[in-house]
Amino acid sequence: MKRVITVSREFGSGGRTIGREIAEKLGYAFYDKDLIERIAEESGFSQEYIEEHGEGSPVRNYFAYAFVGRDASGNSVGDYLWRAQMNIIEELAEKGNCVIVGRCADHILRKRTDCLHVFIHADMEHKKERIVNLYGETSVSPQKRIREKDKTRALNYKYYTDRTWGMADNYDISLDSGILGEEKCVELIVGLAKEL
Amino acid sequence: MKRVITVSREFGSGGRTIGREIAEKLGYAFYDKDLIERIAEESGFSQEYIEEHGEGSPVRNYFAYAFVGRDASGNSVGDYLWRAQMNIIEELAEKGNCVIVGRCADHILRKRTDCLHVFIHADMEHKKERIVNLYGETSVSPQKRIREKDKTRALNYKYYTDRTWGMADNYDISLDSGILGEEKCVELIVGLAKEL
Repeated sequence: MKRVITVSREFGSGGRTIGREIAEKLGYAFYDKDLIERIAEESGFSQEYIEEHGEGSPVRNYFAYAFVGRDASGNSVGDYLWRAQMNIIEELAEKGNCVIVGRCADHILRKRTDCLHVFIHADMEHKKERIVNLYGETSVSPQKRIREKDKTRALNYKYYTDRTWGMADNYDISLDSGILGEEKCVELIVGLAKEL
Repeated sequence: MKRVITVSREFGSGGRTIGREIAEKLGYAFYDKDLIERIAEESGFSQEYIEEHGEGSPVRNYFAYAFVGRDASGNSVGDYLWRAQMNIIEELAEKGNCVIVGRCADHILRKRTDCLHVFIHADMEHKKERIVNLYGETSVSPQKRIREKDKTRALNYKYYTDRTWGMADNYDISLDSGILGEEKCVELIVGLAKEL
């Protein structure tokens, strides 16, 4: 039995919906990236972390000084939020029985043996159709919205994990939700979570 | 029902064995990379192809002229073998009901709707153990043998397909055979081949 499922996903692939359905079927808690971000921002922990590190870390990043919005340790607000989120994800996994969507959770929890790491992707046609149905048309083309969102995800992933986002090797199972359908993806993942 | 299963795999992941078992369970023909290479080398087709192209193709590759072992069209022997193999893979898929391991078959057959494209990977520890059990120890470390083999595969894939080998997006389903076990991989793929 896998107690924690991490779901990484391309924008428009339906990965978040699949994650929510997995959580429902398994009776697990469900945390998506927005929820984790809110917990991190609201938590006293994130403040404490900022204060602790504000006093100066022995490790200094020379490149970081070239950028604005960093403290004496070279940490940006984004870095603090990342650290806070990382700690929250570790705590959630320790409590167990949950599905976590996004936030590099696959990397953060890679050393735990009670996790199943999932990646959901789909071809561009499926993703375009899905985001237009879900979020409507905007002045930016669906293809461009998808490319920009996923480029940000890939860069963020690279920056914090030093791994390449979307490589099959990062995950226990990767599924094309366009070819398989959302229902089949849910069924396969729930089955694996129970059996492994 | 998917009539053709392509299996791409990391060296040592057991992908070839998984492919053979899928073929047995589905009653499909089984073609691995060695078999396809032999067919290509023995086929009259590959000779014809070489002769046809030896007369000069309208498309010329300027960079290719910088390298030795190329003809007037800039094609190397490797390119001819690649073309011959590509045609054989297309013919095998047309005949149908088969499992094809390696040889960029996922890319060559990407436009067919009757194929299931699979990628099998595993963590380094599983792969090391597997190749030592299977092929024995050599003077080169298992890790180095795996890295070199997969580097060649990745470069070859990039050269002929312009895609990145091992990206989840290239395949319908990618599985970690170390975490899931070979038997579970076979079961999942056979199930999908029958249902889709």
